[in-house]
Amino acid sequence: MPEYIVILMEPKFPGNIGSVARAMSNFDLGHLVLVNPCELGDDAYRYSKHGRYILENAMVVNELSEALDMADIIVGSTGKPTDSNRKFLREPITPKQLATFMASKTGRVGLLFGREDRGLLNEELKNCDILVTIPTHEINPILNLSHAATILFYELFSPPKSTRVKTFAGSKEKKVMNKLFADLLEEITYQPYKKEKTKVMFRKIVARAGLSSNEFHTLAGVFSRAVKVVKRLKQEK
Amino acid sequence: MPEYIVILMEPKFPGNIGSVARAMSNFDLGHLVLVNPCELGDDAYRYSKHGRYILENAMVVNELSEALDMADIIVGSTGKPTDSNRKFLREPITPKQLATFMASKTGRVGLLFGREDRGLLNEELKNCDILVTIPTHEINPILNLSHAATILFYELFSPPKSTRVKTFAGSKEKKVMNKLFADLLEEITYQPYKKEKTKVMFRKIVARAGLSSNEFHTLAGVFSRAVKVVKRLKQEK
Repeated sequence: MPEYIVILMEPKFPGNIGSVARAMSNFDLGHLVLVNPCELGDDAYRYSKHGRYILENAMVVNELSEALDMADIIVGSTGKPTDSNRKFLREPITPKQLATFMASKTGRVGLLFGREDRGLLNEELKNCDILVTIPTHEINPILNLSHAATILFYELFSPPKSTRVKTFAGSKEKKVMNKLFADLLEEITYQPYKKEKTKVMFRKIVARAGLSSNEFHTLAGVFSRAVKVVKRLKQEK
Repeated sequence: MPEYIVILMEPKFPGNIGSVARAMSNFDLGHLVLVNPCELGDDAYRYSKHGRYILENAMVVNELSEALDMADIIVGSTGKPTDSNRKFLREPITPKQLATFMASKTGRVGLLFGREDRGLLNEELKNCDILVTIPTHEINPILNLSHAATILFYELFSPPKSTRVKTFAGSKEKKVMNKLFADLLEEITYQPYKKEKTKVMFRKIVARAGLSSNEFHTLAGVFSRAVKVVKRLKQEK
């Protein structure tokens, strides 16, 4: 994993700076560089919460070039390319693609975010090695600065792994459950041609629901009792 | 894709409510329900920006139950389980897993977010069919409310592609299923003191498994047949 430097270009609202610092600490990022920012003021510290230490250690510089020099590679966050900048911009990648790309890299990566109102200017975008755009709906494509930053931090913090949903009832417990369900089908003389399919379906539902141990015991209890009641009633006939 | 309803439980800061509304419009979500919120005030509208229309159409209710009734399935956003609630909580899934799960579903899904300070209480978490936790760093695991919401919205807006769309068994079908299960408990003279708890548990398992229409009909058929067999055997005695 690379080492990340978060660079905010001329941020205008102290609350946003604080919010970015907070999100940085949520996702294990430490280096904040502010280029020609507004006065930090109380709001910045208030919004930073437990990320206050990041704000206190932030570096303030006057020129973007000073920040860019600190990183080996610059990732610029931008909206969808407009006609005016499409000519020279490479097509941006998504945050997920960025996370996949970065997962296997080392080095110092600058994550550059633009002003709240005008974003990054064309001249600034030209300095970026990679552009990233967060997919949004056309009705309102402009994200809050700290929201955009949070999404990138989040993606970079937990890069893609295999998505395995955990199940809880153990395999032994699940066998018991499936046996009880099969017994129930037997006792109620369920249509033979549907039996196998129904058992498989039930097994899948149980796996998907991810039963807790307690849920397993309760549900198994219901089936077990149903089987016993039917058996007893048959004997009493 | 399901239809989402965003539910904020007793939000305390107008700015957060506005920020959530803004993020909702970024990611094409429209239905906001506020349960016993603070006064909305200027900050809420100021932070909502182009998502102001969402705030203006937000529904305000007094009780969580009113909001829960609007959805077929409830997803609760929570931090990592603590020792005090680990006993009864299922292990939460990640936002990416949630997006994968939802990609192939339809129906009405409630996304429930807790208070800024105390999150969702144990009693409230028990109402959730699915729990989701955003992976964060242990140094500062507590996300800002609107940051957490934005990450979920973002993941659900561009889910992994899925070819097969499954329809959630609708609320009418689910009522039929729950009635059949209740009938079965009745016929097998299930312990009365456990009956209510077991019914609730069954309802949750079914909701969580996200039954397809076909699965619903098959499972309902099994219960229906079991009830009939027991009834008939009793009469034949």
